[in-house]
Amino acid sequence: MLVCKQALGPIVGYLDAVAASCAQLATDHRHTLISGRTLLQQALPVTFGLKAAHWLAAIVDARRSLAWTLAQGLYAQLGGAAGTLAPLGSQGLEVLSALADELGLAEPVLPWHTDRTPIAKLACNLAVACGAVEKVSLDVILLAQTEVSEVSEAAVSGRGGSSTLPQKRNPIDAIRARSCASQAQGCCNALIGAMGQEHERAAGAWHSEWEALRNALQLCGGAACWMAQSLQGLEIHADKMQENLEASGGLLTAESVVSAVMAIGGSSEAREAVTRACERSFQTKSPLRQELLSEPAISQVLSPSQLDNALDASNYLGSTQAFIDRALELYQSEVT
Amino acid sequence: MLVCKQALGPIVGYLDAVAASCAQLATDHRHTLISGRTLLQQALPVTFGLKAAHWLAAIVDARRSLAWTLAQGLYAQLGGAAGTLAPLGSQGLEVLSALADELGLAEPVLPWHTDRTPIAKLACNLAVACGAVEKVSLDVILLAQTEVSEVSEAAVSGRGGSSTLPQKRNPIDAIRARSCASQAQGCCNALIGAMGQEHERAAGAWHSEWEALRNALQLCGGAACWMAQSLQGLEIHADKMQENLEASGGLLTAESVVSAVMAIGGSSEAREAVTRACERSFQTKSPLRQELLSEPAISQVLSPSQLDNALDASNYLGSTQAFIDRALELYQSEVT
Amino acid sequence: MLVCKQALGPIVGYLDAVAASCAQLATDHRHTLISGRTLLQQALPVTFGLKAAHWLAAIVDARRSLAWTLAQGLYAQLGGAAGTLAPLGSQGLEVLSALADELGLAEPVLPWHTDRTPIAKLACNLAVACGAVEKVSLDVILLAQTEVSEVSEAAVSGRGGSSTLPQKRNPIDAIRARSCASQAQGCCNALIGAMGQEHERAAGAWHSEWEALRNALQLCGGAACWMAQSLQGLEIHADKMQENLEASGGLLTAESVVSAVMAIGGSSEAREAVTRACERSFQTKSPLRQELLSEPAISQVLSPSQLDNALDASNYLGSTQAFIDRALELYQSEVT
Amino acid sequence: MLVCKQALGPIVGYLDAVAASCAQLATDHRHTLISGRTLLQQALPVTFGLKAAHWLAAIVDARRSLAWTLAQGLYAQLGGAAGTLAPLGSQGLEVLSALADELGLAEPVLPWHTDRTPIAKLACNLAVACGAVEKVSLDVILLAQTEVSEVSEAAVSGRGGSSTLPQKRNPIDAIRARSCASQAQGCCNALIGAMGQEHERAAGAWHSEWEALRNALQLCGGAACWMAQSLQGLEIHADKMQENLEASGGLLTAESVVSAVMAIGGSSEAREAVTRACERSFQTKSPLRQELLSEPAISQVLSPSQLDNALDASNYLGSTQAFIDRALELYQSEVT
Repeated sequence: MLVCKQALGPIVGYLDAVAASCAQLATDHRHTLISGRTLLQQALPVTFGLKAAHWLAAIVDARRSLAWTLAQGLYAQLGGAAGTLAPLGSQGLEVLSALADELGLAEPVLPWHTDRTPIAKLACNLAVACGAVEKVSLDVILLAQTEVSEVSEAAVSGRGGSSTLPQKRNPIDAIRARSCASQAQGCCNALIGAMGQEHERAAGAWHSEWEALRNALQLCGGAACWMAQSLQGLEIHADKMQENLEASGGLLTAESVVSAVMAIGGSSEAREAVTRACERSFQTKSPLRQELLSEPAISQVLSPSQLDNALDASNYLGSTQAFIDRALELYQSEVT
Repeated sequence: MLVCKQALGPIVGYLDAVAASCAQLATDHRHTLISGRTLLQQALPVTFGLKAAHWLAAIVDARRSLAWTLAQGLYAQLGGAAGTLAPLGSQGLEVLSALADELGLAEPVLPWHTDRTPIAKLACNLAVACGAVEKVSLDVILLAQTEVSEVSEAAVSGRGGSSTLPQKRNPIDAIRARSCASQAQGCCNALIGAMGQEHERAAGAWHSEWEALRNALQLCGGAACWMAQSLQGLEIHADKMQENLEASGGLLTAESVVSAVMAIGGSSEAREAVTRACERSFQTKSPLRQELLSEPAISQVLSPSQLDNALDASNYLGSTQAFIDRALELYQSEVT
Repeated sequence: MLVCKQALGPIVGYLDAVAASCAQLATDHRHTLISGRTLLQQALPVTFGLKAAHWLAAIVDARRSLAWTLAQGLYAQLGGAAGTLAPLGSQGLEVLSALADELGLAEPVLPWHTDRTPIAKLACNLAVACGAVEKVSLDVILLAQTEVSEVSEAAVSGRGGSSTLPQKRNPIDAIRARSCASQAQGCCNALIGAMGQEHERAAGAWHSEWEALRNALQLCGGAACWMAQSLQGLEIHADKMQENLEASGGLLTAESVVSAVMAIGGSSEAREAVTRACERSFQTKSPLRQELLSEPAISQVLSPSQLDNALDASNYLGSTQAFIDRALELYQSEVT
Repeated sequence: MLVCKQALGPIVGYLDAVAASCAQLATDHRHTLISGRTLLQQALPVTFGLKAAHWLAAIVDARRSLAWTLAQGLYAQLGGAAGTLAPLGSQGLEVLSALADELGLAEPVLPWHTDRTPIAKLACNLAVACGAVEKVSLDVILLAQTEVSEVSEAAVSGRGGSSTLPQKRNPIDAIRARSCASQAQGCCNALIGAMGQEHERAAGAWHSEWEALRNALQLCGGAACWMAQSLQGLEIHADKMQENLEASGGLLTAESVVSAVMAIGGSSEAREAVTRACERSFQTKSPLRQELLSEPAISQVLSPSQLDNALDASNYLGSTQAFIDRALELYQSEVT
């Protein structure tokens, strides 16, 4: 547990660095439009700041559990061969308490030779932290795809380039983070699965924990560390985000036009007109605005400027800013 | 999450029933001697009450996390297609808050379409609870082995008997609990492993959660329920515990004799004499007492009654009673 | 095992359907250029037919193991309570053999109450088949991304569309396949992990197999079935593949220019000139051809038509056609 | 794959050593009576040789898959950046073939950058081998329990003893084997779960394979090696097996008495008499023979010597000898 304690400090530190970068991105890009994507299809406009705010909230949540584990103290373990502290006679509790003090660990209610909840809970917290990191790494990798090109990792000589393929800018830190995170989760699974331990000391399951625990700590730290490095130098291509958002000719805000039409008492006929215009726009690649204006049921109720308003992605962001604020408040109250 | 909330109540209830039985066993059998076993070999005497106290501490610990999840509320989820609540215009937060209220769920900081920490943490808590149950079930199964026969599940007509094998009293509830617990952990692994979800809605990982979550809840409930049933009717064979403890002719308290010898200034010669006596006793199956008395280095420093004292398992239990008290206090302060 | 046998037939059938579609795509698109992508970055040109050939080879490989399992027969199981067939006196083997015959199952060397290799091997074969399907589903999902748009699933009314988002064409069958595949792998892990079974009949691990095995079969079948449906109607957008390939202005074939230069005795100076031209092209987005022609070390050794030849992606495909042939031969020899 | 090839040889060798010990035990102890145990309860008599024959069949089965993988050759991998071998022009296949030859590896149909079936199948074979080993280790650990004491690992100075607990003879090699086996299975799960790899080179999953594959090979080798060592020196306590078998006063052969009664046209009344006698014997611990003789419905149809015959465990072994022969034949035909 001393090893765990020594490892947890840096892990929390790396998660803090990830959180700090997310908070910075959420702040800086709270108005930077980007396509919200569901099932990897463009769906509705969001902002890149909101994306970062989501990352932030999950990282803060995962960090909280680990920091709390560290703060309340990992349990010292002393029990003698069978958990009675028999060789210490009547002084068992006193010695246990003193040992915990000396090591800076917490005193357990009972020795925990075969009660592996302390190990399993630590494994769970590491696994959740890795999952939160993996989510961020996956988004960065997807946004960095050649055809998306909305972010790229810092161009550092020797990192992420390819000797034979000069056009490549691999998001190598995010890839490393993802790889570490998934490996760490495998180790954590093993630790959770090893909780069924026999009597007063297990015949195998206990022995199988050591390597898995060490690896889980290392890999979780690695995941958080690489992710922090990826985010720190991340280049945000706001123009490309805008370009991708507009590539569908306005279809991402079709829902907004329906809302505008209905808000002023639009008929179901007007709603159908929007659907028709969308279909034509999708089939013919003509701008949605033009197709909408050619529908009398719309042009009669919405002026061109009202229509432009409705089609403007920045007017269809709902509670985006409030959500960003909430994530930043959470961060500030917990981490900084 | 409504489903989760409805499932968590009974799960916590079943864990309470397991805890109540453990507390009763810890109280009733705090002085009932039993062999402490490490690596499935008899090692030192403990009491069956201490064993139950260990079970209790782990169950209380696991129950705490689930009860806390239930108390603080599972998060409501409302975000619209991409997590902005855009169709609700400026009223998004208000509606989210009202929805959470109406459902009796907690209001999340942000929608969590692809922030799966709420699901993963719930999975972790279920997995740890299952691990704590599995430990109890494994001990019951091992203690119920024909050759050990220190406990048996209640003989209820139609349960655990065998039509063709009348001598069988299968610990069928503990076996069911163990089977449910390990299956549930598999589901929880799947949920933890599904945290890496793309952008604003995942292309597959999200869909793979539903069945796993439902199964995890059912199986965790099943594990706790069967374990409660196993413990409620558990027959404790204190005489067989004593018989097994004595089967090695006193070797389980050899460590105690060394302590007694050293406490009165015993020489290293005396310590070696104990080792020699143990080896003879183990080889020849003669009682350790007799072999120790035949060693002058021992018989000269310990009177027969002092030796009997040292060989008495009930005098070599260290902090057993204090540990049982601590587990019971934990239970009373948290659960009852 | 009868259940397994009945399930395996359809599973192999669905895998055959996946393979048939892959073979058709490999044949039809053997010359359709597409960007080869490594770490989700465009790297070198390949053809879509080669991509399909890779899918094909893996599916054929996975299908082979399952078909072989089905052909050689799943093992009948009959052993009596402890695997001796004692109640059958001297007729045990005869009855075992007759039973296997009657059920159309294979006769095992020994009863396998606690030798779970037959179950675990079946689980392994299912897990590998799911992995092969998951790879195909992942590629389809990635190719169908809005910004990539190189394939789309068939537009069938009621499938994959979104009521509120008309522009969405979700690759819903591939997503279902991916989700089933990963869930099935979780079940298979559970089966592999349950091999450690006690003595002549296990106390829990055996009971935990049933649900997992049934789910593994169902989910593997589901994965293959959805994948077959996804591929059968898959629309291939060769023009978009070409457009994406050319978006980097020729950088994907830079390696080819180096080869051409070196083939005619190019100096290291010429190689450096290519690197320089690539960097300028990447930074300024100007076509690579133009940048190369502005480098004397290149324009002096390669004529414009030689350069065009080198920059032509269809001239830098290496063994692509041969590999497609090999995959198709493998398919024809094994499956058809 | 060279590393895999180099590792597989020794792994198969260790499995051979395990198999050899199992075959020896099956031969030597084909008539050594032992309790067959289901759900960890004594059920029916078997022989220790049959137990070893079961271990043998599973080990031979698992070994076959690995030996076959080694014999047919692991696949060489050469594909260039995107799997086309473009830089090699028209000589790609020739070079691939020559490379495979030079390395002593098999030539793949296609490069397999993101077709991970070769890795996953290897992982499966390792996982199954570990499962077969784990089963043996678990049985040894259970048979070595203090209260069972039917086997013990060789008493080698410094191994398995306990400095403070002279009576302990820990089955430490079996415990090590079990621990290695379960750890290896975790690594194999990770490899199977990493099959979903993107396009022509994966963004993370590929990188997560290396450590897992190396660990899987090492740990599988470790499991087999420790198991071989455990079995080689295993002490078989046939007298203790007999003693445990008889501890239930004949109840393990009650089924045999029913058969004997029915074989000579016994009435359903006679069958009920056996059940009654069993229950009395179980409750009062009186020998079953005596209770049976006190039932007229039995004593009238079976002479005391016929009854003794029926109660003799060695007369109620069914196809035990034939099964042992079949396992030994399998072993001889495949391994030696």
